[in-house]
Amino acid sequence: MPTKKIAVILAGCGVFDGSEIHESTLTLLYLSEQGAEVQCFAPNINQAHVVNHVTQQEAAETRNVLVESARIARGNIKNITELNVDDFGALIIPGGFGAAKNLSDFAFKGADCTVNADVLAATQAFAKAEKPIGLICIAPHLAPKIYGRGIICTIGKDTNTAAEIEKMGAIHQDCTVDNIVEDKAHKLVTTPAYMLGRSIGDIAPGIRKLVLRVLQLTDFQ
Amino acid sequence: MPTKKIAVILAGCGVFDGSEIHESTLTLLYLSEQGAEVQCFAPNINQAHVVNHVTQQEAAETRNVLVESARIARGNIKNITELNVDDFGALIIPGGFGAAKNLSDFAFKGADCTVNADVLAATQAFAKAEKPIGLICIAPHLAPKIYGRGIICTIGKDTNTAAEIEKMGAIHQDCTVDNIVEDKAHKLVTTPAYMLGRSIGDIAPGIRKLVLRVLQLTDFQ
Repeated sequence: MPTKKIAVILAGCGVFDGSEIHESTLTLLYLSEQGAEVQCFAPNINQAHVVNHVTQQEAAETRNVLVESARIARGNIKNITELNVDDFGALIIPGGFGAAKNLSDFAFKGADCTVNADVLAATQAFAKAEKPIGLICIAPHLAPKIYGRGIICTIGKDTNTAAEIEKMGAIHQDCTVDNIVEDKAHKLVTTPAYMLGRSIGDIAPGIRKLVLRVLQLTDFQ
Repeated sequence: MPTKKIAVILAGCGVFDGSEIHESTLTLLYLSEQGAEVQCFAPNINQAHVVNHVTQQEAAETRNVLVESARIARGNIKNITELNVDDFGALIIPGGFGAAKNLSDFAFKGADCTVNADVLAATQAFAKAEKPIGLICIAPHLAPKIYGRGIICTIGKDTNTAAEIEKMGAIHQDCTVDNIVEDKAHKLVTTPAYMLGRSIGDIAPGIRKLVLRVLQLTDFQ
């Protein structure tokens, strides 16, 4: 059987300023268990900021999104400008504040956010090619920017965040942590993960469901 | 049913200078799935060095082991000096170079290594209390320092590393990536993980087996 090739976009390494480590690792785990071939990508830009994860205070440091993302990818990572949609069957983006601080500035500007141009180009290429995308946790805020108005997604049950995403044109559906929401017309799959989950055991079933559904929707390359 | 309380010692965040992220996350996943209560700890010291995970070159930066470990623990972490063995039923230490660079200097000195004093005190307290310890990947190099000569453990099949650990007094047993080695007299469980595994899917079954066995050996607190 040919292998399904999946791109994963990371946004740093750590829940408060990068990609959420558990969500990213579980994504890689379930893709690997299903025999998918994975390539990680990240933008080669500085992080919006660096957060000390003990104190949750901003640190006087500069870190690069690609370099920090490489920690999760064990070095097997490429600049997002090298992401060619023709090489992959689907795309998954885990959450963590980095998705809303480094891939866009949603964490700072809400509905008035701007998405990094390379991230927008890469994600829209998958949408245009009608290839499935999985967005986890806070990453679904990207959906209305990728697909435009009327896209269906979930960030769980947080009414403030849901309202911001709806301002951007998305249709938000409440969802429990162990489940997924699918926009069937657009092959977009979303799950709340740590937007709702209290523990890594809580978030695992929803992420597993998202990965399996994205792979079901993926054609072989 | 009462909850089993497990301590996890981390050594930074990233395979080349800290705790291996996948091994650490899978440890937390399987503990969480089994209903165990986990508290992460790390020494409040500077890392031996910082490695750029894209280039694998040393970076001109200083990072703190506790602060970086907090990324894996989502902020829920304590200084290892606060680890009281009476509060926990068992201890697990994931691998990654950090275990052999920050918890000890084994990566630099081999059999002549020294273990961080607080790490040695904490781990020996579990051994003395006859509480189980799980060591993953390269972390089993700590076993002869914790238990003394004759302790049985595995780091997989790497003959050079195994020879260094045997010089320190351990009895090394070869082991496949999906399996564990147990020193029944000392309640020590070890598994090779990324010492042998090529992918996160490879290492997951052995880590799961280690976590389940450590929990079987654990009394309720």
